[in-house]
Amino acid sequence: MKVMSYTSEEPTHMDNDQARGVAGRVAIGKNDGANHFCMRVFEVAPGGYTPKHAHDWEHEIFIHAGEGEVFGNGDWNPVMGGDVVFVPPGEEHQLRNTGETTFVFACLIPSGIPEL
Amino acid sequence: MKVMSYTSEEPTHMDNDQARGVAGRVAIGKNDGANHFCMRVFEVAPGGYTPKHAHDWEHEIFIHAGEGEVFGNGDWNPVMGGDVVFVPPGEEHQLRNTGETTFVFACLIPSGIPEL
Repeated sequence: MKVMSYTSEEPTHMDNDQARGVAGRVAIGKNDGANHFCMRVFEVAPGGYTPKHAHDWEHEIFIHAGEGEVFGNGDWNPVMGGDVVFVPPGEEHQLRNTGETTFVFACLIPSGIPEL
Repeated sequence: MKVMSYTSEEPTHMDNDQARGVAGRVAIGKNDGANHFCMRVFEVAPGGYTPKHAHDWEHEIFIHAGEGEVFGNGDWNPVMGGDVVFVPPGEEHQLRNTGETTFVFACLIPSGIPEL
């Protein structure tokens, strides 16, 4: 069994044309023997956002902390701690921090694609 | 895209010889078109606990709120919001609330087994 804070992992920072203020970590993945799906945890700084994109695999997202919005179904949807988001394969999506604290969410993907 | 609070789903309550004070919900599952893995969210009341058991599939757990402990590796391990737990297939495990507020965690399993 692996038990740890997600912050124990070294973050990968994303600051470019597509994403701003994002720190991503693989919390549970193939290196742990997780062979079916992978848990990543993302922190988005105030004013930050993830890329707006679509891909062939789904996301299952659990919002942990902070305030943000998820783009989907043609609009921005407000989310906060305790909210869940299912992004089906092929659907365009993006998350952004609309609050003044760090926006934190777990985002899970199937195995077999890049984990981060 | 599905966006909601996990509390929007009707809970299934577990109070028996094996579990105490547990409310479980399928937040994202096969009814949403999630074909690879399933997100359940559990609330455990103060003094409550999940069953101590083992099974052939893994758990990927994200602790959201409250204070608790996870049994694994032969001992009880304290956990709080932002902690993650990977329970490999076959490993005995149990979670319990050791605090005075509701202990909340997302627990994901592969598809193809009962979702709750």
